Amino acid sequence: MEYVGENSFIKDNLSKFEAIMSQGNGYMGVRASTEETYTNEKRNTFVAGTFNRFDDEVTELPNVPDVTAIDIKLNGYSLDLTTGITKNYSRKLNVKTGELIRNFKWISPNGDEFSFSFSRVISKERQHIILQQVTIQPLTNGAEVKVQSGINGQVTNTGVQHFTEGEMRLYDNMYLQMTPSTIESNVDFAITSTHKFLQNNKEIDLDTQVVMKRRKIYLDYFLKLDRNECITIEKYSSIHTSRDNDKKVQGKIELAHFALDEMKTLVNMSFDELKAESVTAWNELIWDNVPITIDSDNGFDQLAINFALYHLHVMTPAHDNRMNIGAKGLSGEGYKGHTFWDTEIFLLPYFIYTHPDIAKSLLEYRYHGLEGARQKAKDGNFEGAQFPWEAAWITDGETTPYFGSADVITGERSKILTGLIEHHVTSDVVIGIIQYFQATGDQTFMDEKGYQIILEAAMFWNSRLEYNEEKDRFEINNVIGPDEYKEHVNNNAYTNYTAHWSLGVALDVIETLRNKNKELYDELDKLIDINTLEFNIKSNIDRVFLPQSRNKVIPQDDTYLDLKDIDLSKYKSQNFVGGLFNDYNPEQVNQIQVTKQADVLLLIYLFENLLEEEEKVASWNYYEQRTLHDSSLSLAIHSILAADLKEKNKAYNFFVKAAEIDLGPNMKSSDEGIHAGSLGALWQTIIFGFGGVRALDGNLRIEPNLPKEWNKLEFYLYWQGQKLHLQINHDKLEITNETNSKKVDFVHNKEVYSVDGSLTVKL
Amino acid sequence: MEYVGENSFIKDNLSKFEAIMSQGNGYMGVRASTEETYTNEKRNTFVAGTFNRFDDEVTELPNVPDVTAIDIKLNGYSLDLTTGITKNYSRKLNVKTGELIRNFKWISPNGDEFSFSFSRVISKERQHIILQQVTIQPLTNGAEVKVQSGINGQVTNTGVQHFTEGEMRLYDNMYLQMTPSTIESNVDFAITSTHKFLQNNKEIDLDTQVVMKRRKIYLDYFLKLDRNECITIEKYSSIHTSRDNDKKVQGKIELAHFALDEMKTLVNMSFDELKAESVTAWNELIWDNVPITIDSDNGFDQLAINFALYHLHVMTPAHDNRMNIGAKGLSGEGYKGHTFWDTEIFLLPYFIYTHPDIAKSLLEYRYHGLEGARQKAKDGNFEGAQFPWEAAWITDGETTPYFGSADVITGERSKILTGLIEHHVTSDVVIGIIQYFQATGDQTFMDEKGYQIILEAAMFWNSRLEYNEEKDRFEINNVIGPDEYKEHVNNNAYTNYTAHWSLGVALDVIETLRNKNKELYDELDKLIDINTLEFNIKSNIDRVFLPQSRNKVIPQDDTYLDLKDIDLSKYKSQNFVGGLFNDYNPEQVNQIQVTKQADVLLLIYLFENLLEEEEKVASWNYYEQRTLHDSSLSLAIHSILAADLKEKNKAYNFFVKAAEIDLGPNMKSSDEGIHAGSLGALWQTIIFGFGGVRALDGNLRIEPNLPKEWNKLEFYLYWQGQKLHLQINHDKLEITNETNSKKVDFVHNKEVYSVDGSLTVKL
Repeated sequence: MEYVGENSFIKDNLSKFEAIMSQGNGYMGVRASTEETYTNEKRNTFVAGTFNRFDDEVTELPNVPDVTAIDIKLNGYSLDLTTGITKNYSRKLNVKTGELIRNFKWISPNGDEFSFSFSRVISKERQHIILQQVTIQPLTNGAEVKVQSGINGQVTNTGVQHFTEGEMRLYDNMYLQMTPSTIESNVDFAITSTHKFLQNNKEIDLDTQVVMKRRKIYLDYFLKLDRNECITIEKYSSIHTSRDNDKKVQGKIELAHFALDEMKTLVNMSFDELKAESVTAWNELIWDNVPITIDSDNGFDQLAINFALYHLHVMTPAHDNRMNIGAKGLSGEGYKGHTFWDTEIFLLPYFIYTHPDIAKSLLEYRYHGLEGARQKAKDGNFEGAQFPWEAAWITDGETTPYFGSADVITGERSKILTGLIEHHVTSDVVIGIIQYFQATGDQTFMDEKGYQIILEAAMFWNSRLEYNEEKDRFEINNVIGPDEYKEHVNNNAYTNYTAHWSLGVALDVIETLRNKNKELYDELDKLIDINTLEFNIKSNIDRVFLPQSRNKVIPQDDTYLDLKDIDLSKYKSQNFVGGLFNDYNPEQVNQIQVTKQADVLLLIYLFENLLEEEEKVASWNYYEQRTLHDSSLSLAIHSILAADLKEKNKAYNFFVKAAEIDLGPNMKSSDEGIHAGSLGALWQTIIFGFGGVRALDGNLRIEPNLPKEWNKLEFYLYWQGQKLHLQINHDKLEITNETNSKKVDFVHNKEVYSVDGSLTVKL
Repeated sequence: MEYVGENSFIKDNLSKFEAIMSQGNGYMGVRASTEETYTNEKRNTFVAGTFNRFDDEVTELPNVPDVTAIDIKLNGYSLDLTTGITKNYSRKLNVKTGELIRNFKWISPNGDEFSFSFSRVISKERQHIILQQVTIQPLTNGAEVKVQSGINGQVTNTGVQHFTEGEMRLYDNMYLQMTPSTIESNVDFAITSTHKFLQNNKEIDLDTQVVMKRRKIYLDYFLKLDRNECITIEKYSSIHTSRDNDKKVQGKIELAHFALDEMKTLVNMSFDELKAESVTAWNELIWDNVPITIDSDNGFDQLAINFALYHLHVMTPAHDNRMNIGAKGLSGEGYKGHTFWDTEIFLLPYFIYTHPDIAKSLLEYRYHGLEGARQKAKDGNFEGAQFPWEAAWITDGETTPYFGSADVITGERSKILTGLIEHHVTSDVVIGIIQYFQATGDQTFMDEKGYQIILEAAMFWNSRLEYNEEKDRFEINNVIGPDEYKEHVNNNAYTNYTAHWSLGVALDVIETLRNKNKELYDELDKLIDINTLEFNIKSNIDRVFLPQSRNKVIPQDDTYLDLKDIDLSKYKSQNFVGGLFNDYNPEQVNQIQVTKQADVLLLIYLFENLLEEEEKVASWNYYEQRTLHDSSLSLAIHSILAADLKEKNKAYNFFVKAAEIDLGPNMKSSDEGIHAGSLGALWQTIIFGFGGVRALDGNLRIEPNLPKEWNKLEFYLYWQGQKLHLQINHDKLEITNETNSKKVDFVHNKEVYSVDGSLTVKL
């Protein structure tokens, strides 16, 4: 249950496999582009946090000069699987070890047969290191081999170049180095590569020729192989930048020397040694630490969660709290590496419950982003901190692009309004903080950063309220809610409820500080006039309009329930998303009772006690049939809510669909990167949905809902610093406190249990 | 003798054929990239004069968003000749009509066979128009066809993006438009495309789907074909820019509307009509006007000159005197579209003698470039106008890049010094002007522009002279001469002689103006203190050091004749150039008696009366064996000089080698574009070398030297406004003055002949 793979080479599917088999370590992400190049490849290497702006576009993660491509010419024919004949093809990513492996035999166009094995590792132990290994064996004749390999700075982000050409240099006839810088953000890069050629485990010397072209430096290696004689090529590469927080170097020249010196040391270690230490790092992080074991009738379920856990760490820059997770992780150009509400609502829970230190770092990013958030509030004539819909480098503020895809009716590009009017992210950040605090009890974080964020967010929300004199109430009008099919709506339920809740949290915080930490209160009071804030919130909070149910259905916004209903079956049955826009333009979709993704239902999930059971059921029935799941974040929420509502079959079906977002048969949906948030959401379906775990009103609740396909579910959770081991089957829940430095209480079936050591609860 | 072609598809050779079969009309150049895409293609479209600077690099011609690619999917398989089986492949450029034709049958990977015909025309009649036609016929089964075609702005210059994304728009469900701008130079572009689908000559309507991606807009077309049923796709595209001088539009929106309106009119004309008017334009320009006919034992000779004539007009922006010819024309990224001395010394003679209006435009470019030339002089602490070694947009001044390829010894990139110390181009411009004036007698040009250039160039040269007190002479030290293998040399013969000559020309000009055009004299005197200039030149000119022969050999520079001699046979026999640098770095090459290209020999060619016959022969014998012809400008000069020296076999051999620079078997040498200067030089080998035509001391001289392989040579020349028709065989020269509005005198075998109507001279 650790291999994601393919057994045939299909050029049209390259992009999907590049994404789902992408590798990385949170510092960098590298798509699984093959060593040989193809026209439709999307060869990307990204280093977290190195955003750059091109022209007047929004900032994005630049595609770093490539080291992965290696051209191998055999008796005059370049390896190219669209030519000749390929046999026994196998490519697989071991999501447990992080190793990408490819094996095949290739008969070149002139009839010579060769055996190839490839291995690639992005070190989890050394965050700057990319390791590649290629073994070639001629099977029918001898071979003249020409290997062309180096560093290619001609790569772009879909045609956009973010880097200066920089210097190119060959040292000691073996170390290639390129030192470009991002053009606008001035981040210096040092990319270094070297090669070893091995026969019978012994390094051999070869004839070489260095070639420098524009933005490209490489070495040509020439050798001859007899029939059946093997050659192994090992390429070690590294990427360092001036944004790195793990070393102190001054300027680009020092950076380049640092990288060169590191590489000179690294070549003394073998590929296997370097791979082994990376495997150990992965084991210590996940598989020996917080594995999830699913005993299911469908082996795919276990693979899906292993895949998710792997990518959750590949994508997450845990090393630097000035960085966060992109909507496609580091696995593609989609969403430009930007961070969305996905972090707090979909990804954070995994980290809160298994790696609270990483969760903290992700929240600290929002703290570092306060300056940009204040600027965004100011730009909209609001107060406090309004978090950007799309966030990039901490000081960038709002980075949502201005235009999207074609409007089929007008022929123009659609405007993207989310950066302007999708405001709920400021509540989502507060939700994330409270979830973190409830699960960890990390008072230090709250004192240093969390409380301030909550108060500044409340300032924003208070200033955002619009007084409706006629109705004597505060409204939030002209927004986009989580359902992005609806633009310019008034009183989106999710937005209004979470804003109201955020204001209430702020009142609690003020109360707590005043009573328990006057020193911090005074400090924050210098930044924020707390009395005024408190007065304003108290004056307004009870009149914030909270949409009430109509026939038990919570209206998504002021008009949704009165819009036109159309037959959605065509779109619900399509095996791709967004099909609606081939028939309707955004303006028309705005007038139809159709929902992109969980909106009211998400609210119900996040605030379990908000509604009556009847309202929940009625709302579920209403929205579920009108939702197209045109966001990868939707299916998982539906799965969890179905589990909560004891609809186990539906819950399991939604889970499988959610797991198939990247791993399913749609060969195009992951081209621009894996769906980061959906992988965090998948973890939530298992732990929160089927495991029934929830932090309800600050208390741990465990209410398992295993689907009938599962025999057993086993996982680990951190709660208040205690590491819990949970084993759940249809009959019982076994829970062990592995830390056991203090007792852990939890609620099950309305009873409170206390775990001191181990405990078994009958289900 | 009009087809350049290939009879098999070889992916490795794509770039060569893209260059040599490139099309254009002087306004734009489009490489012959195939409709389907391949990894190693170099898909380029350039519009003359639209230079842009990226980062702190030098300005270059940007690669314009592409319209040529068309993806054709048949029963699920994209046309891709590296897959399946290709039969009866033929691709050819008709250099007389400018039409690029490709035909083949393709058996797709699933066994279906199709017939394909492609035609592509860049209109010579309408400079903005690109026309493509594709006909597909399924031969074995019916076919589901998906055609994806539009405008792709993801293209770059080897990874460098010069354009903003701009707007993308679909009009009337059929007109695609993209309007990017160059980022630094702010040239607006409007690129417009539309498609017709025809069956039995009737347009049919198809299902379409518009797709907009980043920097990319296209339409998907869907259709079904029965077995043997044909479909013809016609794609009309246009490029307009804000730099165009053929229309007055204000701003990008007007430009876009102009282009759209034009396209809406254009679609009413058929592909064949549009092709026919382009063919007519080519005929009127060359083939019915100034054709060259070679009756040779080797048909290749005729093809070679037709190929040269075609490309000479494809590359030349005759429509706009703010633009000039790039060293690779408009056929590749090589030399960034920059203009070198190649224009005056190698290309201009063709235009002077066949299209004097174009020659004038090319010289006017230098006049418009005076500002940049003055700036360059100033930057070097010189006076007057120093023409840039590499010139781009008229105001750019010097645009030579700073770094070249790898130094094999140090591992660093070599510095490019030509922009700093290769100074002879300022003489070359004067040579061009004088040649033009001698042949055309265009007094207006001289009065308006020519004289001023000559005087400002003389100011530069005078200020450039370095007084050697010890020897009481003026030297020109620390230069690169035409032989670029030698850096930092003193008193390069070519440089010193031509500088000295330029100063003499300026004295003549001053004398002429003073006596014959006092009004102009006074006008120029306001810009240039003519008295001071005259005084300075007169004080210095006789002491300018002109290297004298040693054992009858003119020394290339102060040290050349004393450098180390090595065995060059290895490099002289290599079928590629630059091989020397795989063994020696530039510093070492500087110390060897080896020459890149004609240097002293070029001087001998250009100034026929400068040396004694013995010196010419001795210098020829000396340098010819030390020259590696690592410049495409070298072989032709050697051919002409050999013809002058009556070495007919050598002359012909050099001619054939010169003709093979682009058309020969080396499959890599033209990757970055055709060798523009070499094509002008090839014309010189025929007309000046074998035809023996020369303007000697202002008089027309005709001294034919037909090689034994040729039976007859026939061509046209303009001399002093008279169009002459020359027919030469081994026995006689027939010359007819087709204009015959005045008599034309010429010298042959030291006798003066006067042509009034026709004349035959026995040889």
